[in-house]
Amino acid sequence: MDGSAILDRCAALARHSDSPDHYTRTFLTPAHRAAAAQIADWMRAAGMEVRTDAIGNVIGRYEGARPDAKTLVMGSHFDSVRNGGKYDGVLGILVPIACVAELHRRGERVGVAIEVVAFSDEEGARFHTSFLSSRTLIGRFEEAVLARHDEEGVTLDEALRGAGLDPTRIPGAALDPSKLAAYLEVHIEQGPVLLDEGFALGVVTSIASGTRFSVRVKGEAGHAGTVPMKRRRDALVAAAEMVVAVEREMAGIEGAVGTVGVLHVKDGTGNVIPGVVEFSVDVRAPDDARRAAAEERVLAKLDAIARARSVAIERSRTHDVRSAACAQWIQDRLAASIERCAPGKSARRLPSGAGHDAMILAQVTDVGMLFVRCGAGGVSHNPAETVDARDAGLGAEVVLDFLRKF
Amino acid sequence: MDGSAILDRCAALARHSDSPDHYTRTFLTPAHRAAAAQIADWMRAAGMEVRTDAIGNVIGRYEGARPDAKTLVMGSHFDSVRNGGKYDGVLGILVPIACVAELHRRGERVGVAIEVVAFSDEEGARFHTSFLSSRTLIGRFEEAVLARHDEEGVTLDEALRGAGLDPTRIPGAALDPSKLAAYLEVHIEQGPVLLDEGFALGVVTSIASGTRFSVRVKGEAGHAGTVPMKRRRDALVAAAEMVVAVEREMAGIEGAVGTVGVLHVKDGTGNVIPGVVEFSVDVRAPDDARRAAAEERVLAKLDAIARARSVAIERSRTHDVRSAACAQWIQDRLAASIERCAPGKSARRLPSGAGHDAMILAQVTDVGMLFVRCGAGGVSHNPAETVDARDAGLGAEVVLDFLRKF
Repeated sequence: MDGSAILDRCAALARHSDSPDHYTRTFLTPAHRAAAAQIADWMRAAGMEVRTDAIGNVIGRYEGARPDAKTLVMGSHFDSVRNGGKYDGVLGILVPIACVAELHRRGERVGVAIEVVAFSDEEGARFHTSFLSSRTLIGRFEEAVLARHDEEGVTLDEALRGAGLDPTRIPGAALDPSKLAAYLEVHIEQGPVLLDEGFALGVVTSIASGTRFSVRVKGEAGHAGTVPMKRRRDALVAAAEMVVAVEREMAGIEGAVGTVGVLHVKDGTGNVIPGVVEFSVDVRAPDDARRAAAEERVLAKLDAIARARSVAIERSRTHDVRSAACAQWIQDRLAASIERCAPGKSARRLPSGAGHDAMILAQVTDVGMLFVRCGAGGVSHNPAETVDARDAGLGAEVVLDFLRKF
Repeated sequence: MDGSAILDRCAALARHSDSPDHYTRTFLTPAHRAAAAQIADWMRAAGMEVRTDAIGNVIGRYEGARPDAKTLVMGSHFDSVRNGGKYDGVLGILVPIACVAELHRRGERVGVAIEVVAFSDEEGARFHTSFLSSRTLIGRFEEAVLARHDEEGVTLDEALRGAGLDPTRIPGAALDPSKLAAYLEVHIEQGPVLLDEGFALGVVTSIASGTRFSVRVKGEAGHAGTVPMKRRRDALVAAAEMVVAVEREMAGIEGAVGTVGVLHVKDGTGNVIPGVVEFSVDVRAPDDARRAAAEERVLAKLDAIARARSVAIERSRTHDVRSAACAQWIQDRLAASIERCAPGKSARRLPSGAGHDAMILAQVTDVGMLFVRCGAGGVSHNPAETVDARDAGLGAEVVLDFLRKF
């Protein structure tokens, strides 16, 4: 299939941006609503019946061969992070639309009804939320978030009503799990594994389990010139040992990753020994058991360093997500489709370190994910994000093959 | 002598503050000018003739026993860091004033004329300068700094004129080195050594040699969930190893101290692998040779870590001060005075890790420094800074004894 046409649509959609300078599209802004309208047009042109639900998801339906067929949901998100990449999310909407368009062109129906969902909010950059759309689809929208406001003071409730959506109808927007065949998400890998190993596509085995901590180390501030080294309780040297430990403790736990992304020296001044340092710790692993093992090792090590250096340590968990396994039958069928579409190439199976809507849908139905290789060293959430047109085309062929096997 | 009276004056002077909430007194503010007027009053009451020079130094003169006597200059600064401690600097003005007052009360003159200098600017918090006052006294004021401005856009030149001072007269304000006997500065230690070892007073052997670097580490940013540990070039983990190395490389170089006081993760976000980290390195040692050795070790180690982790490193020197030795004869006389005033107690000799005006005066005359023990764990540049009244009183007795031996 024509990958270039799919990527052209990604680029066209990226022109609907909150900023003239870079691609940023946050929930329910004018650019976001324009993108929704464009996606709905493309869905209709592909032969789908289109509806918008109460959270702003754009849903295109293509009936199956039989009226009693279950529904295969496919999709991803069309909101972005600030200054993001134009394939993140959007590719997982435009590949399925292209596949349905191809079925429609051939006059074909398959063994399942297809619903392509363009999720209105996954990144949550505007209201500091996450997965609003997929939570709505599984009936787990939390009403309390309606009171959250953006930087201009507009609440989520006001933003929804301003876009012509009725927040009271969100609970009624859940999908009926008994009618679902499965959920399939196509997404760029957002990492370098497929690129490094020479695979165009990957079959996701699970979506990582993740936890995030906020850590505060309290030592003793002092004059950088007058306090002897042995007399110091330097909060930054302690925190630095901890940062190195987060990296080191991941060794030997296959697939585990640990990152300190934020580190702040309170009242930092060149000639003052740091008294208080705060930092974040993000630990992920392909499954909950490995995540728990990695977390336990890291936390024990942090405590040991604090004791050895006589500094105080406080920590609080700020984020905690259990892993979601991808259904074995979907993995196997995707792998078979890849081998049929690209003969001689076996499928690379890999876990997803990033979170995706599939993780939420997994609470009500079997899920699968197809990764498309990321260019530019695997960079994502960044304007440098790229996808090769051949990879996008092959991805669409694999999805089409997968659909036709139902 | 009555240490309580000296500390009461420190407390009274601290009420002349730029802020109602904490003690901050920066160059030529209304509070600073009020403090200068108060100091001049105390000098006059102690029998001194008072003048103010072109940089705002308040200088009290007490003639010697003979008209041709050389001049012993004593003093310290009365500006402060932001939210500082009320003994830093000020103690070194009020102890000499108390000693002269005592000589005056007794009707005594000694073998030197005494000039007590209240230095108007040492910390340089307002115009980001340093040692403006002592540089003026040695004829090394740099005219270019007159164009510097404070946070409100007022230039140093304007601030001087606004205070009734004439910047064009600064070059004429230098002391004549041929008429100087020496320079003696009393100062709180600003560290914990005397406190830990049970000495009220210390004789300074040298003022540390210091250097400061700004370091920038550039690795590769990435998604915290998707980039495998082995594939990372995390700028923060590299910087953290460097922070630990700064501490470790000081071992074995007697008196050397190394501090990273500032560390900044550029665009730090919890789920992003840091791409760029910037930090400061401050290295000091009692003499230039040890400082050079410590610096060389640290820089070699930083480069080795950068190579091992495949990150780029850039560094620039932002500050460089050579060490200043205290004159042996002054050290010995101060030690003898301590032993006379506190029989049975030997003098603790120690280097000063902090910079002081004495370091600048050392370029034109012999200098000495007497440290007074710091309370509260040796904390300074902080509202928690304390001095014991008995220590202040003993310090004044030692200075008086020292003066009377001329």
